[in-house]
Amino acid sequence: MDDNVVGRAVSRRSLLTATAAGIAAPAAVVAGTSLAASAASGVTRKITIYAEALPGGLYGYGLAPGQATVPGPVLEMWEGDTLEITLVNRTDQRLSIHPHGVDYRTDSDGSPFNASFNAPGETRTYVWASHEMVAAEGRRFLPGSAGYWHYHDHAMGTDHGTAGLARGLYGALVVRRRGDQLPDKQFTVVFNDMMINNKTAPQTPMFEANLGQRVEWLVIGHGGTFHTFHLHAHRWADNRTGLLEGPSDPSQVIDNKDLNPGSSFGFQVLAGDHVGPGAWMYHCHVQFHSDGGMAGIFLVRNADGSMPPGAEDAIRRFQGHVHGAAAHAQHHDEGVQG
Amino acid sequence: MDDNVVGRAVSRRSLLTATAAGIAAPAAVVAGTSLAASAASGVTRKITIYAEALPGGLYGYGLAPGQATVPGPVLEMWEGDTLEITLVNRTDQRLSIHPHGVDYRTDSDGSPFNASFNAPGETRTYVWASHEMVAAEGRRFLPGSAGYWHYHDHAMGTDHGTAGLARGLYGALVVRRRGDQLPDKQFTVVFNDMMINNKTAPQTPMFEANLGQRVEWLVIGHGGTFHTFHLHAHRWADNRTGLLEGPSDPSQVIDNKDLNPGSSFGFQVLAGDHVGPGAWMYHCHVQFHSDGGMAGIFLVRNADGSMPPGAEDAIRRFQGHVHGAAAHAQHHDEGVQG
Amino acid sequence: MDDNVVGRAVSRRSLLTATAAGIAAPAAVVAGTSLAASAASGVTRKITIYAEALPGGLYGYGLAPGQATVPGPVLEMWEGDTLEITLVNRTDQRLSIHPHGVDYRTDSDGSPFNASFNAPGETRTYVWASHEMVAAEGRRFLPGSAGYWHYHDHAMGTDHGTAGLARGLYGALVVRRRGDQLPDKQFTVVFNDMMINNKTAPQTPMFEANLGQRVEWLVIGHGGTFHTFHLHAHRWADNRTGLLEGPSDPSQVIDNKDLNPGSSFGFQVLAGDHVGPGAWMYHCHVQFHSDGGMAGIFLVRNADGSMPPGAEDAIRRFQGHVHGAAAHAQHHDEGVQG
Repeated sequence: MDDNVVGRAVSRRSLLTATAAGIAAPAAVVAGTSLAASAASGVTRKITIYAEALPGGLYGYGLAPGQATVPGPVLEMWEGDTLEITLVNRTDQRLSIHPHGVDYRTDSDGSPFNASFNAPGETRTYVWASHEMVAAEGRRFLPGSAGYWHYHDHAMGTDHGTAGLARGLYGALVVRRRGDQLPDKQFTVVFNDMMINNKTAPQTPMFEANLGQRVEWLVIGHGGTFHTFHLHAHRWADNRTGLLEGPSDPSQVIDNKDLNPGSSFGFQVLAGDHVGPGAWMYHCHVQFHSDGGMAGIFLVRNADGSMPPGAEDAIRRFQGHVHGAAAHAQHHDEGVQG
Repeated sequence: MDDNVVGRAVSRRSLLTATAAGIAAPAAVVAGTSLAASAASGVTRKITIYAEALPGGLYGYGLAPGQATVPGPVLEMWEGDTLEITLVNRTDQRLSIHPHGVDYRTDSDGSPFNASFNAPGETRTYVWASHEMVAAEGRRFLPGSAGYWHYHDHAMGTDHGTAGLARGLYGALVVRRRGDQLPDKQFTVVFNDMMINNKTAPQTPMFEANLGQRVEWLVIGHGGTFHTFHLHAHRWADNRTGLLEGPSDPSQVIDNKDLNPGSSFGFQVLAGDHVGPGAWMYHCHVQFHSDGGMAGIFLVRNADGSMPPGAEDAIRRFQGHVHGAAAHAQHHDEGVQG
Repeated sequence: MDDNVVGRAVSRRSLLTATAAGIAAPAAVVAGTSLAASAASGVTRKITIYAEALPGGLYGYGLAPGQATVPGPVLEMWEGDTLEITLVNRTDQRLSIHPHGVDYRTDSDGSPFNASFNAPGETRTYVWASHEMVAAEGRRFLPGSAGYWHYHDHAMGTDHGTAGLARGLYGALVVRRRGDQLPDKQFTVVFNDMMINNKTAPQTPMFEANLGQRVEWLVIGHGGTFHTFHLHAHRWADNRTGLLEGPSDPSQVIDNKDLNPGSSFGFQVLAGDHVGPGAWMYHCHVQFHSDGGMAGIFLVRNADGSMPPGAEDAIRRFQGHVHGAAAHAQHHDEGVQG
C-alpha cells in the first residue's frame, strides 16, 4: 500500500513537484498511523507562492512565476506538519495570504489589522503550523487541525481583502489526519458571489474522472452572496471526510449543502458509484443562481477513459445553453407570483 | 411489533394504497434488520405519477388522475429498494421529476441537460434505485441512500425547473435504513421563496397530532431565498434521524435550522413531549419572513383527540392575524435603525 | 476539582450573584455525574428579569432594576433543572421572553399567539423546565435539553417580536449536561442584522482572556439578514460542545459557521492555544458585512495578564478603522465585476 500511496501522492500533486521535496515523507507516514508516533513525524515544508495579475482584471496565486491560477494551487499538510510560505507579491496592490484552520502567530495572520501583509512588490514569509487532537478532560479531545480548509487574500481593496477575493486570490488547503485516504483526483470549486471559480456557465470548469476513481471535492464559499452546492447522482456524509466513520456514525447523508462566505468542506466519492458514467451536473441550487450560470459538469468517463453514450450531446447542450440576466429576471417574476 | 409496524405502514401510507402492492413486504423486513439479509430483500415498486395543472397557476404531482397536490405525495423506500416511476405529463408544459439522494442513470436525471424530461402530454419512466452503506477502507463506510430527501421538477421554465418549483412541483422522498422507526404521522413543510407549501399565513397548513404520537417532519427548501425553520417547544438532534444514536452521539440538539434551496432534513418528535398539548407555532425565524406570513400551526391535541384549553383561541387569533407588506416594510425600518 | 468548579461557577456568574442562591448547588452536582443520580437533582431556581428602555432607542433585559444590558444576562441551567422567571416590564411597550430549547407550556410560550406576553408595565411569570436524554427504541435516545440556546422577545412591534429583537431584547441560555466542563470566561456574540450586539466597529465588544484560559463563546443570530461567524486562529468541532467526544467523533472541525436568524451555537477554546497571545479578529465573513463594521477583537493577553507585543498597535489600528456605507458600496461594485 505504501507504494500506492506515495505513487498517488506524487502524481496527483504535480502542482507541487517544484517544491515536493517534503512530500514523499509525510505521505509515507500514512503507513504508521499511531497518534503517538506522528507528533514526532511533523515536518516543515518551505514553498514559494507568487501573487500575480491575470487577464480580465483577475489576480491569482501560483507556485512558480507566470503560473498563477484561479483558484490557486491546492496546498496540503499532514496534521503536525508546518508549511513555511514565502509569498512574492508581483503586483502593484497590497495583498496577503490568510489561512483557515491551521495555527499561526499574529505576524502570519495575513491581515492589515496585525500589520501582516505584502506591500506592492514586497516578499514576506508566513508560517502555518498544525497539530493533532489533544486528549482533554473526560473522553474528550481538543480538535486537531485536520480539515478541508482554504486560504485567501485578506488585504486587497479593504482590510478584509474584499477586492482580492472578488478578483481570484483564493485556494484550497487540506490538512489530513494520519490514516486518511488519499484521492486519485481533486477538484476545487469556489462559489464566489455569482460565479464558480470566477467563471459562469458555459465557461465553468468541467471536472473529469473515470468510473470508480476516488475523487475529492474541495468546496469553498466566498464573496457577499449565499449559495447551496448540489452535485447530481452522488452523495456524501455531512462530516469531516464525507465517509461514515463506522456503521453508527449519526451524520446525515446529503447531496446539497449550504456554501456561504468563508466556509469550506470536502468529501470523497467514487466517480459514478451506483449510478454509472455520464455527464452529471454540479450547480448552485438557488434557482436564479443556477439559471444565471452557476452550473458546471462532472464528466464521469467509462473505466477505460472512453466517452459514455450521451455525454457528448449533453456537453454540447450545456455549451449552447443560454444563461444570465434574462433567466434571472424571469425568476423574480416567478418567485413573486408563485 | 411486526403487526404494529405493518399496520402503521399501511394506514399512514393511504396515499400509496392504489400502488401499495410492494409496501407490506419492505415494512415487514423491519423485523429482520441484519444488513446482510437486507441486500437480498431489495424490491422494485412501480408507481404512476400524474403531473397536472391546478387552480391559481399552480402545478402538482399526484398518484392518480385529478389527485395532484402541492406538495406532491410522500414517496418512501427502504435502502436497497428501487422505485420505477411512470410520470404522466397531463400539462402543456415541459416538465420532469428529479430526485435527491437516490441512484439513477443519466436517462432518469430529470434534466434537459441529459435530455431526460417529459414533453407536453408525454409519458416517461424514471428509475430510482437505492443502496445500503458499503464497508470501505479502515472502519469507514461509503454512505447508503437512507435520508430525508426530496424530488422536484427540473425542466419547466428553465433548464433548472425554476418555473415548476415556483408553481408547486415538489415533494418529499424518504429512504429508510433497516431498523428505522416508522412514524404515526408525517408532515411535509416546504419553504419555497416567501411561502410555505406555496401558501402564506393564515392559509398555511395546520398540522395536527395527539399528545404522544410519533410525528415525522419532512422539511424542504426551494426557490431563491434563504430561511431558517423553527418549531416551538420541540427539539431534535441535528443528525440523520433527529434521535441521538446512543448516549455519546455528539450531535447538537436544535430547534432552529437553516433551510435553503435544494436542502432537506427530517426528524421525529413525540407530539407535546415534556411540554404538553396546545397550539404551537412553526415558522421561518427570519423576522420579516415570519411577519410576512411564513408561519403555521402544529396543533397538539389531548391524548384522546380533544382540544386542549386555549388552543381554539390561539387558532382564532392566528386566522385573524395581519401579515404582509406592511410588516415587511416595518422591519427594514427597524433593521436599519436597530 | 469541586472547589475549582464551584469557585469558577460563582466568579464567572457575577451577573447572577444577586440571584445566585441556587447556583452553588447545581455547580456542585458536577462532582457526581451519573445520569441516574441527576434526575433526582433537578432544582427550581427563581429569578426576576427587568425589561427596560435604554439610550439610543434600545431595550434590554437585566437581573436588577437599572441593570438592563444588550445582550441580556447569560442564563444557565443543568439538564433537569427548572428556571422560574418573573419578568417585570418597565417599558411602555408590549413584550415577552421566549426561550429556545427548553420545555415550557403554552402559557410560557412568550407569544401573542398564545396570549403569553407582558402588557406595558405588567409583571408575568414564565417557567422553563429541562430534561435529560431519554432512552428510546434500539440504542437510540430522545434528545435532552442540553445546548447553547438563547432567549428573546416575541411580542414587541409584531407578533414575532421583530421590533424587540431589532432593539436588543435577546440573550444567551446555556443548558449543561452532567459532566460538561465549566468555562473560565463567557462571551456572548449576537449577529443582529448588520450589527454585533447592536453595535458596529469600532464600538463592537473587545473580548479579553489570558493565554490558556478556557473561553466559552455563545453565538446567536437574529434579525432579517444572513451571516457567517469567523474567529481567527481558533477552531472548534461542529458538534454540541465544540470538543471532540472521543477520537472517532466524525464532526467536522471548523472556524467559520453559518449564523442565521434564530440559530445559536457555542463552543469552548483555550485562548491562544497553539497560536499564542495577541489581538485576534472575529467577524462576519460576508465581505460587505465585515467591511461595513461586523468585526471585533478577541484580545488574548499573556498568561500573566500583560499585553503581548503588537496588540496595542492592532487595537489602535482597529479603532481608527473606516467602516460603513462606503465600503459597502465598494463591495457591490467588486462583486459584480468580479
